[in-house]
Amino acid sequence: MSPLVRNIRLGVEYEGSDWHGWQLQSNAPSIQGELERALLRITGETIRLTGASRTDAGVHARGQVCNFYTESGIPLFRFPFALNANLPDSIVITGADLVAADFHARYHALGKSYIYTINNNPLPAAIGRQFSWHVPRRLEVTTMQEAAASLVGRHDFRAFQAVGSPVADTVREIHRLRLEQAADGYIRILVEGNGFLYKMVRTIVGTLVEVGKGKMAAAAVASVLKGGNRAQAGPTAPPHGLCLEKVFYGPQPVLTAEKS
Amino acid sequence: MSPLVRNIRLGVEYEGSDWHGWQLQSNAPSIQGELERALLRITGETIRLTGASRTDAGVHARGQVCNFYTESGIPLFRFPFALNANLPDSIVITGADLVAADFHARYHALGKSYIYTINNNPLPAAIGRQFSWHVPRRLEVTTMQEAAASLVGRHDFRAFQAVGSPVADTVREIHRLRLEQAADGYIRILVEGNGFLYKMVRTIVGTLVEVGKGKMAAAAVASVLKGGNRAQAGPTAPPHGLCLEKVFYGPQPVLTAEKS
Repeated sequence: MSPLVRNIRLGVEYEGSDWHGWQLQSNAPSIQGELERALLRITGETIRLTGASRTDAGVHARGQVCNFYTESGIPLFRFPFALNANLPDSIVITGADLVAADFHARYHALGKSYIYTINNNPLPAAIGRQFSWHVPRRLEVTTMQEAAASLVGRHDFRAFQAVGSPVADTVREIHRLRLEQAADGYIRILVEGNGFLYKMVRTIVGTLVEVGKGKMAAAAVASVLKGGNRAQAGPTAPPHGLCLEKVFYGPQPVLTAEKS
Repeated sequence: MSPLVRNIRLGVEYEGSDWHGWQLQSNAPSIQGELERALLRITGETIRLTGASRTDAGVHARGQVCNFYTESGIPLFRFPFALNANLPDSIVITGADLVAADFHARYHALGKSYIYTINNNPLPAAIGRQFSWHVPRRLEVTTMQEAAASLVGRHDFRAFQAVGSPVADTVREIHRLRLEQAADGYIRILVEGNGFLYKMVRTIVGTLVEVGKGKMAAAAVASVLKGGNRAQAGPTAPPHGLCLEKVFYGPQPVLTAEKS
């Protein structure tokens, strides 16, 4: 790599409602597509971004991370402002770092955390409805917490991935899976792990909701995990309740000397 | 009034982003218009609603209140569900009460509270951007609090109403005006009073932001109030940061016997 080429890491926040997911698509507006278009506008270069997480259509992010290579001389600290001026309001660059030449946003991620939000009030909400799944039937949160405990740790999560996923290794480790019920009737499910299979978080949430409704016993979740059969798990929760909160990296790749 | 006619009070929550304000308009979609259309659909009656606050285009509400007369026999508890099924997602009925025949949502309101939200971070936000005014320049909140104190109490607020308002009596009482800065860089301004002139809350917020930027002295706000000249106050803050939180009533008008 030429010494003129910089590898830059961006923090990205977005409301996924209007987008067909993170990943570039030829026939639908995507977050990656909007970012690459904004990069072309400010650098004059055709840039291919690497995102840490290929979030689905409708999924939000507060802490998405991506990286790209550029020969442009734009000072690092100006990237967020210059890109934000060229992006729709629903996508915001929250920061830029200079990282080592071999840094890869996806391969070098040590883990990720997501929050899934459920509005468990009898009536829907107008304000914030884009960020929560409305489940009007009262959920038994303590039973859901019991079921959640059986998913924490290193397991083969095959039963919790979308049918037909081509991944060979379906073993992942969930570090934390915590359910919190707020006084306002909202339930927030925090999931942190070293990696996630396709639609794994939403399948876990959909399964826990079945438990909360009393349609599945808390103890059955461990059997579903062991059985490895997607048909035994609950339905996939809708995307708009899900938000990618953070992607974790080791401290090594950041060249702090030029950090903004 | 016939004994078959009921006076019903509704609680309404809405995201104002897509609406041209509360009030019915012949040529633009309004919240009142959507509610009256939904009422026609479920009762078969052409109903004219009375709203407590005629919120402007873009302004949100968690606690709007309105009332209407109906001869329909629909049980009170079914109104929220039946109306919500016939309303767009951005408008939600949060409750229904049976009230005395002479209850009037606007005339009987004893007071109202609003929250205005400012995002005072250098960078904009993608998530929640519809509910806050982005002011990137760092605001001096303690100076704003000092200025706010001079507005609390019973005053002639003529200087803080939109130019050309036809109201004769411009004396209002502000019971509380509190600014809170959260750790996430957001400033929330709570305003509670017995009534508000047209665009009064947004003019107060716009003026306090001038103080926070150092463009106006905190002590000058008392002089602006005394001077009674709109041109001396700050600009009108944008509508999307504003939310009507609550309308206050005395306990008398609710006929609790049929309360849902």
